[in-house]
Amino acid sequence: MTTVEIPTIDDVRAAANRISDAVHFTPVLSSQRLSDAAGTEVMFKSEHLQKAGAFKARGACNAVLGLDDETAARGVATHSSGNHGAALAMAASNRGITAHIVMPSNAPTVKRDAVQSYGGLVIECEPNLEARETTLARVVAQTGAHIVPPYDDARVIAGQGTVGMEILEQVPDVEALAIPVGGGGLLGGVALAVKTLKPSVTVVAVEPAGADDAFRSFGLGRIIPQTSPNTIADGLLTSLGERNFALMQQFVDTVVTVSDEAIVAAMRLQWSRMKQVIEPSGAVSYAGILEHPEQFRGRKTVAVVSGGNLDLNKLPW
Amino acid sequence: MTTVEIPTIDDVRAAANRISDAVHFTPVLSSQRLSDAAGTEVMFKSEHLQKAGAFKARGACNAVLGLDDETAARGVATHSSGNHGAALAMAASNRGITAHIVMPSNAPTVKRDAVQSYGGLVIECEPNLEARETTLARVVAQTGAHIVPPYDDARVIAGQGTVGMEILEQVPDVEALAIPVGGGGLLGGVALAVKTLKPSVTVVAVEPAGADDAFRSFGLGRIIPQTSPNTIADGLLTSLGERNFALMQQFVDTVVTVSDEAIVAAMRLQWSRMKQVIEPSGAVSYAGILEHPEQFRGRKTVAVVSGGNLDLNKLPW
Repeated sequence: MTTVEIPTIDDVRAAANRISDAVHFTPVLSSQRLSDAAGTEVMFKSEHLQKAGAFKARGACNAVLGLDDETAARGVATHSSGNHGAALAMAASNRGITAHIVMPSNAPTVKRDAVQSYGGLVIECEPNLEARETTLARVVAQTGAHIVPPYDDARVIAGQGTVGMEILEQVPDVEALAIPVGGGGLLGGVALAVKTLKPSVTVVAVEPAGADDAFRSFGLGRIIPQTSPNTIADGLLTSLGERNFALMQQFVDTVVTVSDEAIVAAMRLQWSRMKQVIEPSGAVSYAGILEHPEQFRGRKTVAVVSGGNLDLNKLPW
Repeated sequence: MTTVEIPTIDDVRAAANRISDAVHFTPVLSSQRLSDAAGTEVMFKSEHLQKAGAFKARGACNAVLGLDDETAARGVATHSSGNHGAALAMAASNRGITAHIVMPSNAPTVKRDAVQSYGGLVIECEPNLEARETTLARVVAQTGAHIVPPYDDARVIAGQGTVGMEILEQVPDVEALAIPVGGGGLLGGVALAVKTLKPSVTVVAVEPAGADDAFRSFGLGRIIPQTSPNTIADGLLTSLGERNFALMQQFVDTVVTVSDEAIVAAMRLQWSRMKQVIEPSGAVSYAGILEHPEQFRGRKTVAVVSGGNLDLNKLPW
């Protein structure tokens, strides 16, 4: 029998203290037009305005700042094709240590540039999971670097959970939450924090229909890995983590899916009406509110906007 | 001899009281990356987050709310191909009166939709200034509507000046301002307010090189009308107004020009780093700071971002 460490509200509280100087306390934005379109009052917890452009900064900083000096001195490492790599590079840079980021050779230039702009070392590999894991293992063997996984990690989940603590401070009368789910780091952490501190809040996970492993896993009560995901929400392609699934089972009320068309429509409304640059994965929460109004009607709702990093040369309209 | 009414700081103060419930007190945003790129601390007064997506809401609301009931009942009118039309429609809608907006037949669909979304009546005309003025005169003759000009108007200038009062409240130690100039409503109002209340602030007007009538007028000491403007900053094509020029001569320290390339580069930085949807005219102030760093170095600078309305299908990169 194996056990895994599941974070608790105390871990989230500790994370909030640990990272408060390293990350932004992001604003909650609103727009009458976007609430009108949703048929309920919606506020947007704006992690696209977080450092490095996504909530990932929180978990990465919590993990990096929690290392003892000796471990930290050997650097940190991960494999990532997205926001976690940049976030870990940023967190490492702040602590003055090295970040080794294994990236597939087909990763977007903009993501690679983001890692390098924070001083992270990009190690290229073939674009498949096996190559990523093999390359990461080699990096760790050579450098002694400490691995910080993107979502299936108690420190990372606790860091992401600080989003939930901030929401309760900013919108104390919140009644419903819409949270995007990919690997489940953000969802698990926020659901843990909010449901523990205010159990009356309805927590709705929103997932792209083209990568609906969380929807299926939640329904069946066991992890169903994601194979061949196909969605514009490129931050939500991965399979649910083990710790994340456990938290989801305990703290999430419902999982809904949204089409790519709905994601693009939501994103475009957020750009044109709220004037915010939000990536497709970041628009998934609002898409869920638009496509599943029955989950939110009459409830003061906070949609978590997860990030704003995308290639401005390749917009989906 | 003719005289025109030039607003004073008391008019700006009265405008601030009059419009406080009708418009947003917009935030001041900042980004370490954008300050680093500028070589000085820059903060962004974010009028792209204003109602109807531009500072124009302030002047329009001040004019509309200042009308007596009898005049207001006959409605308001203007000609506009841009943000002023939508702002006036919004202000009129709030007061429950009709707005007649004369628009050239080649106005972008997005601008026409904005007017109509606030219930404004769009009256189409040929795309030239003479046709706009003739059509507007006809509308006024038929309806008795009250004309609210886009910038050469004391009430409108006083309304735009409230941006300056808010800046002094939000950034009391501001040392320099970068303000875009087209017709000069925003520039005249903000310069009046800030220079009157804090004369030590350096006020720099920034104008697209392809529509540099303010630059030339300021240098020669008399109004040089703009002919054949050619710039991506479509909110800054018009000639300087008479009242606006008078205020500019009294309260502006310097006028600088920027290339369209610099405007697009500034805009792209603001989109990618600050995650804000800003129209080309709104990026002109930051472009001025990037192209003329000697005007701002060592000074805590506020750049006024004038608006965020643009066609998301036609981005300049």
